[in-house]
Amino acid sequence: MATVTIGSSEFDRDTAVTRRAPGVYDAHLSAGWTIIQAVNGGYLLALMGRALGDALPHPDPFSVTAHYLTASVPGPAVIRTEVVRAGRSMSTGTASLVQFREDGTEVERLRVLASYGDLSALPDDVRTTAKPPAIPPYEICPGADSAPGGRPAISGSTAITERLALRLDPATAGWAVGAPSGKGEMRAWFGLADGRDPDPLSLLLAVDALPPTAFEMGLSGWVPTVELTAHIRHRPAPGPLRVAITTRNLAGGFLEEDAEVWDSEDRLVAQSRQLARTVLHG
Amino acid sequence: MATVTIGSSEFDRDTAVTRRAPGVYDAHLSAGWTIIQAVNGGYLLALMGRALGDALPHPDPFSVTAHYLTASVPGPAVIRTEVVRAGRSMSTGTASLVQFREDGTEVERLRVLASYGDLSALPDDVRTTAKPPAIPPYEICPGADSAPGGRPAISGSTAITERLALRLDPATAGWAVGAPSGKGEMRAWFGLADGRDPDPLSLLLAVDALPPTAFEMGLSGWVPTVELTAHIRHRPAPGPLRVAITTRNLAGGFLEEDAEVWDSEDRLVAQSRQLARTVLHG
Repeated sequence: MATVTIGSSEFDRDTAVTRRAPGVYDAHLSAGWTIIQAVNGGYLLALMGRALGDALPHPDPFSVTAHYLTASVPGPAVIRTEVVRAGRSMSTGTASLVQFREDGTEVERLRVLASYGDLSALPDDVRTTAKPPAIPPYEICPGADSAPGGRPAISGSTAITERLALRLDPATAGWAVGAPSGKGEMRAWFGLADGRDPDPLSLLLAVDALPPTAFEMGLSGWVPTVELTAHIRHRPAPGPLRVAITTRNLAGGFLEEDAEVWDSEDRLVAQSRQLARTVLHG
Repeated sequence: MATVTIGSSEFDRDTAVTRRAPGVYDAHLSAGWTIIQAVNGGYLLALMGRALGDALPHPDPFSVTAHYLTASVPGPAVIRTEVVRAGRSMSTGTASLVQFREDGTEVERLRVLASYGDLSALPDDVRTTAKPPAIPPYEICPGADSAPGGRPAISGSTAITERLALRLDPATAGWAVGAPSGKGEMRAWFGLADGRDPDPLSLLLAVDALPPTAFEMGLSGWVPTVELTAHIRHRPAPGPLRVAITTRNLAGGFLEEDAEVWDSEDRLVAQSRQLARTVLHG
């Protein structure tokens, strides 16, 4: 497929919002970004990020927190934003995504609190001591179609996997052949299937687009995200990203997933942490 | 000083809120929790946490995000809360803290988005792979009065240091004698000076109560918090806490501080990440 530019990708199409009044946006949650019957949380975060980028006076997400309240479904949605503070170099806002029941009443899906700035205005110093993840070269990491033993068995929709160009680190792909490592780790090369280069909004997708570390820890069942906070630290360079996710605190029916996103110039362009539930309470 | 119980500590007194109407609370920001002219961010987080614990149907913070908008000052404040969703095992809410200018108009200091639950209702399984920090025993870690060379020179108020029983890991205390390590690390034993045992609310203070890692990295000047997200994962056991903070991504005028809080039973009871600015833009 020919590489598409930023703005003309299916990612852009499916995260588009239409402002119908100040602070009110129409959106459509695409079925193309679902996994195991759930609309992917990173896709929803990117969608909210696009609305906030329009609502706030600064263009780029710096810190974005989402609380996932009820399960989104493909279909129409409305996003309402509020400007909390418009500063000189940063601004802060909230966003609420709702969908509609058959009787027309609203149900809120996500609530977001975020601060935005201008990544282009930041000084270019780098004193990062973190190191890029040790993922084998792109060519030897299996894509979904080339995983040993064929496509992993996941019940329900795997539509999102057709939107992404994911190549898992074999060391974190044991779950796909019934041999989970037992370690809370997941690593992959990440890109969009239509070749669109990354940008700050697609980083919001990238932090929540890998298989869950729970798969490698031998946990079965759904591990829904309760809350996710992402920091966007630099505009990503063109080319594939490397995403490394770690879980170190699986306890009490919850776990955290820490994600790092590295670009092709070895910059740590995004960091996130999510809190997810491993045991659904009554 | 005799050990005080949870509820009767200066921490409880200074984070108390009075509900004057549904969702509206009066508070007083105490000058006792300031450092270098700023009201400590963890103290503010705990104060908001107390209000939300009253406003929401679940008692304990699970995930709390604060965006620090303008600098708080000691004095009166009003907190307004909103219930976003009241679920069966978790609920979500927002909180806004405002103070008043001389002309009576409001200025917002913090905006918080948080999900609450009941820590006592969680199953007791622990598969945490993270390990407690290697801090030397309490007895050999210097308190503020016993730091080599005497009390570190910090200009402006150090009132909060009188509220806390902090004992720094000597390996992260080089800054106090003009010899910063250059590493983005800060570790300490943490308690309250009046001996109050920790609880979920005081964990919100603990994640932001150590000297900044910036001190060890040789950065001078103020490093204000833009946003902080804390996960409270377990009710802490009585006794001192160990707090370990790490910075790995100092770049572009920002840095992150990742904090882990361990209790006396070697449980990882809280984790947080904050985004802070190292260079104040115009």
